[in-house]
Amino acid sequence: MRAVKIFAPGDIRTVDVPRDQVEKPTDAVIRVQAACVCGSDLWAYRGAHEVTEARMGHEYVGVVEEVGAEVTTVSPGDWVVGSFVASCGKCEICLAGYPSSCINREFMGGVGTQAEYARIPWADGTLVRLPKPPTDDQMRHILAASDVLGTGWYAADAAHAGPGHTVAVIGDGAVGLSAVLGARVMGADRIIISSRNPERQKLALAFGADEIFPERGDDFVQRVKEATGGYGAHSVVEAVGTHESMQQAIRSTRRGGYLGFVGVSHDQTIDGSRLFAAQIHLEGGPAPVRRYLPDLVDRIYSGEITPGDVFDLTLPLERADEAYAAMDQRSAIKVMLRP
Amino acid sequence: MRAVKIFAPGDIRTVDVPRDQVEKPTDAVIRVQAACVCGSDLWAYRGAHEVTEARMGHEYVGVVEEVGAEVTTVSPGDWVVGSFVASCGKCEICLAGYPSSCINREFMGGVGTQAEYARIPWADGTLVRLPKPPTDDQMRHILAASDVLGTGWYAADAAHAGPGHTVAVIGDGAVGLSAVLGARVMGADRIIISSRNPERQKLALAFGADEIFPERGDDFVQRVKEATGGYGAHSVVEAVGTHESMQQAIRSTRRGGYLGFVGVSHDQTIDGSRLFAAQIHLEGGPAPVRRYLPDLVDRIYSGEITPGDVFDLTLPLERADEAYAAMDQRSAIKVMLRP
Repeated sequence: MRAVKIFAPGDIRTVDVPRDQVEKPTDAVIRVQAACVCGSDLWAYRGAHEVTEARMGHEYVGVVEEVGAEVTTVSPGDWVVGSFVASCGKCEICLAGYPSSCINREFMGGVGTQAEYARIPWADGTLVRLPKPPTDDQMRHILAASDVLGTGWYAADAAHAGPGHTVAVIGDGAVGLSAVLGARVMGADRIIISSRNPERQKLALAFGADEIFPERGDDFVQRVKEATGGYGAHSVVEAVGTHESMQQAIRSTRRGGYLGFVGVSHDQTIDGSRLFAAQIHLEGGPAPVRRYLPDLVDRIYSGEITPGDVFDLTLPLERADEAYAAMDQRSAIKVMLRP
Repeated sequence: MRAVKIFAPGDIRTVDVPRDQVEKPTDAVIRVQAACVCGSDLWAYRGAHEVTEARMGHEYVGVVEEVGAEVTTVSPGDWVVGSFVASCGKCEICLAGYPSSCINREFMGGVGTQAEYARIPWADGTLVRLPKPPTDDQMRHILAASDVLGTGWYAADAAHAGPGHTVAVIGDGAVGLSAVLGARVMGADRIIISSRNPERQKLALAFGADEIFPERGDDFVQRVKEATGGYGAHSVVEAVGTHESMQQAIRSTRRGGYLGFVGVSHDQTIDGSRLFAAQIHLEGGPAPVRRYLPDLVDRIYSGEITPGDVFDLTLPLERADEAYAAMDQRSAIKVMLRP
């Protein structure tokens, strides 16, 4: 089968690999119908950490091709979506609503879903069956739910976005934009997002942002404070992952407020005394997307939300190299890949 | 009047100072009936930061002596208790339940309650009237509520101690012991505390601890994991404030769990990537004790809780130097001072 691999920073190729197989009785194999490039894939592409030859991709919508002997909730022919983390669904962490931290978890990035087929570990815990085969439009939206939508949703939830709260979103990538959408559905009073990019600003407004602040760092913090009676935002979403953005997020949160952080952390250190003085609630990590998927699928099929609007470019799997370049250069917000 | 002052690290004296006065219409002045030495007072005593000549003390039970023109909720002659932070009670932060982060707050340590009289800023927001003059026994318990009990209570609350949860408390000082008491009242399934001191172990058991682990660092983490099916504790309280204890606390918390941190942070740095991977809820800072005071006063007067048992030494104000030395050398858990 064909699959996307990275060979070195900046070197992405679609190549022949052996077809994925059921390896354990709890596995399924899906025929991938749509995959995409994630902002977090760019860390490797940009050489932010050591890169060895590896399959890429962790988001997916597909049709079940075969299932292991112990799989009971999906069958060949079912349309399915799952999270970027495969989870058993049975351990205490899964049952508490944190499947992305499941003790049996497998990161789908280690499988590589930018491919014609993909093995899905813990199929019963991981996959959600779609109510019917999606239209192309619905497929885009469902694909977004596999990671960015679910991640933004979690960030908004962790930030306690909701009635009475002003929400500040730091990061205008697909996750930040999805957090805006989540905060709007959760009933936030007012949603502010940091952005300087006209295309992303437009999508932010369409997703429900009330205000767009182009400022960064201390200037952004200052504007958030001015906009909130000097207090800071009740709810802040960090969707970048740098040291600077995390500091900006902490300082934008009012005392007693909530910060949801989902940007994959790189080179961050948090000063304990500052965190003590800030007196905020902090929750973050790899988003427990599977917790939200059934609800998100319902909202997508009912037409309530259109999260797939973050995809502004679709390319065939064979042109994955162009997809990475477009994301890297920020000429596209998010690129869908069709095998 | 007589008041305790620090002149240099290790140099504590009870000296003559001008009597505290009402300075603003929102102030009250109380005749202090009982004050005490806090673990956090020891940072200055030990020279952990620069020390200039200053009044000491931030915990107090007293009788109102006089009130400013705008004070309406307490009158001369009332027995009162308040938190270690004076708070307006009216700003959005106070109303959200975080009076210790009130935008108008004044730390009582800046006033100095180890004295015959003490000025209480924002008297209406800060003071809670006692239902009747306390007995000596009740006074000890109420004094504990002024800081250590309320701080331990907050830590247990922030850690979501309650039914179904295993709680691990790091720190066997008065705050850690108070967190045990809080977790017990909140209905925690099982309470573990780290301690090697026989006196403190005895009190921990009396306050409701189920198990005492003498291990520290990674060994403690390992024992907590072994005791919780490999997952870690649902709820962890950090009541020390060092870099090591905070790391120990983070690693003792299961993924998706809750960490309440109240040890005044010194030289802590938290690695962002580790925090991301840990996926825990983190809340801490100066405890919003005022939020809990009315409830704590009720529980004390009904005899349900006896938090003043943390006081194992009482000295007259004139012997404050001995009180500090006893706390410093850990020969006393907590020392009460009577003017």
